[in-house]
Amino acid sequence: MIFLSEKMARACFKLTTPPSITAFSAVGGKKENEGPLGNCFDKINDDPYFSTETYEQGESQLQKQAVRFALEKGSLKEKDIDFIFGGDLLNQCVGTTFGIMNYNIPFLGIYGACSTMSEGLLLASLCIDNKIGKRVVAVTSSHYCTAERQYRMPIDYGGQRPPTAQWTATAAGALVVENSDNPPFVRGVCVGKIVDMNVTDANNMGAAMAPAAADTVKRFLEAFSMKPEDFDYIVTGDLGKIGSTLFCDLLEKDNINVRENHTDCGLMLYNFSDTDVNSGASGCGCAASVLCGYFLPELQRGKIKNILFCATGALLSTTVNQQGEPIPSICHAVWISSEKNNLDFKFSK
Amino acid sequence: MIFLSEKMARACFKLTTPPSITAFSAVGGKKENEGPLGNCFDKINDDPYFSTETYEQGESQLQKQAVRFALEKGSLKEKDIDFIFGGDLLNQCVGTTFGIMNYNIPFLGIYGACSTMSEGLLLASLCIDNKIGKRVVAVTSSHYCTAERQYRMPIDYGGQRPPTAQWTATAAGALVVENSDNPPFVRGVCVGKIVDMNVTDANNMGAAMAPAAADTVKRFLEAFSMKPEDFDYIVTGDLGKIGSTLFCDLLEKDNINVRENHTDCGLMLYNFSDTDVNSGASGCGCAASVLCGYFLPELQRGKIKNILFCATGALLSTTVNQQGEPIPSICHAVWISSEKNNLDFKFSK
Repeated sequence: MIFLSEKMARACFKLTTPPSITAFSAVGGKKENEGPLGNCFDKINDDPYFSTETYEQGESQLQKQAVRFALEKGSLKEKDIDFIFGGDLLNQCVGTTFGIMNYNIPFLGIYGACSTMSEGLLLASLCIDNKIGKRVVAVTSSHYCTAERQYRMPIDYGGQRPPTAQWTATAAGALVVENSDNPPFVRGVCVGKIVDMNVTDANNMGAAMAPAAADTVKRFLEAFSMKPEDFDYIVTGDLGKIGSTLFCDLLEKDNINVRENHTDCGLMLYNFSDTDVNSGASGCGCAASVLCGYFLPELQRGKIKNILFCATGALLSTTVNQQGEPIPSICHAVWISSEKNNLDFKFSK
Repeated sequence: MIFLSEKMARACFKLTTPPSITAFSAVGGKKENEGPLGNCFDKINDDPYFSTETYEQGESQLQKQAVRFALEKGSLKEKDIDFIFGGDLLNQCVGTTFGIMNYNIPFLGIYGACSTMSEGLLLASLCIDNKIGKRVVAVTSSHYCTAERQYRMPIDYGGQRPPTAQWTATAAGALVVENSDNPPFVRGVCVGKIVDMNVTDANNMGAAMAPAAADTVKRFLEAFSMKPEDFDYIVTGDLGKIGSTLFCDLLEKDNINVRENHTDCGLMLYNFSDTDVNSGASGCGCAASVLCGYFLPELQRGKIKNILFCATGALLSTTVNQQGEPIPSICHAVWISSEKNNLDFKFSK
């Protein structure tokens, strides 16, 4: 692993032995099944309770299922996994706690709101590239009913949702990172910074997150001396319609044009003919399931060569938001490629 | 770094070039100043609001101050830090978010409840040992007034506290990990597992956490073929009186006697003549400030040779606790030594 020590390259790492994402799974709910990616899920649960008594227990099932399917698809057992990076949107990440405690696997909790899959994949890849474990899992989830009642209104209240609102995905993604010659590979990563542009509207997460995504993408491209067109897709997590426009506009101010190859998981998961969707999908499970259900299979098959996966997290707390505080955000970037070493790029240093 | 791949050694790592904790700071409040470790703090804040408008903003100040003092004591600037691992007890870790966003430093959020300092130090040490960055910070905090109103009762309510209750510390600790020949050094780490013994009482965190601490300490000792007496102290995070007794009892069942050299940060921070303290101190800031204010200076001076630092986290969520769910817990272990390579131990493999 080469450490890029220039100022702009801080916390950007090129992986010398690009780790492979050897197994992955996506789990979703009824609405996710009805969207354009419905056939990309390994498992669909029509019951929002997942046959449990509470939505929170239901979200735990999402993570439990996602890890189980990823292990099964990789012909792996619990003992084959050294440790798991996991987290979710719920207070104290209980979706993860109660999902993962079913497995006898050491665990490191992470919190990055909807950027969690980027953060987990970034950390897992750094670990495997440096032989800190042989096989590491990253997992995350979100659930419409748990998230809405925690962050906004209980769904039973039937509150009106403004056009800027996004629909929290009921979904999870899990993946296994290890050394292997099978694509896809993680080639480089960039640790994000907390960015605060003073957005205070809990119904406009896209606007809050776009500046963080733009900051990280800019830092990544500069550190690796790469251009947007080196990637088939620059994939943001869940900026939605509003945030995606802002993201492209912000980068354009720095003379970086991503309009041609930017896409957003929040724009891919649902049919926009469904008016409930408003600005698009959101939640940790959105970026995680679109990555594990759509992009990783396409990269594995070589249909897509390179993506820059940039899940974005709005670090929203209802407590401090109601005290008038803004919603700072963060975005971590992970370069995933169908080839181990297919771009002859120079480093800025 | 040597990877211990035996079954019992899973997720245990010996650091080949033990990283050094070169700078550290502890920040506290009025009650912490009045305890036995009062003179160990770099900064005491008598005002629980820290000259801000809310307790949550106050907690952010704790982290902001802790990082600033650690940097100052190490003659470091923001740009010298590659990234920060940080988290706290508050929903969405807002103490950390609003503390760290003041610095222009990449950030990776972690969630391990009161085990956060162990988790951050573990990850920072693995990073530095593998040259993933040159200099990494770990930070965490807790605040009595923010934690009590989030997890139990707003303090204004004046609720009665049972004898098993612990007093959440208003404190923070921050430390800088890098390669150096100056003690103390991180020699080995063990990633914890989520352990659930079906404790449901939010006023008895010690009982919830003791099994996780016992599990991790047992795994560490087996993986490294070490004995409790190899350490001057086996330091748990905040088990308090109840949890400490349980911890020793649990290990005794496995023929591991830690009674002679076990200590607990929750037993060290306050005077027990203060009846409010009940079972002892707790909170992320308890273990973090006792580590950074007391143990690290003693290790630096060589007064203490070896400790096994085991901050313990109760993954308590009020939402699911009120639904009748238990309080699973986790504990990560970090071996900190005054010498880089002073124990001639054999690995189990």
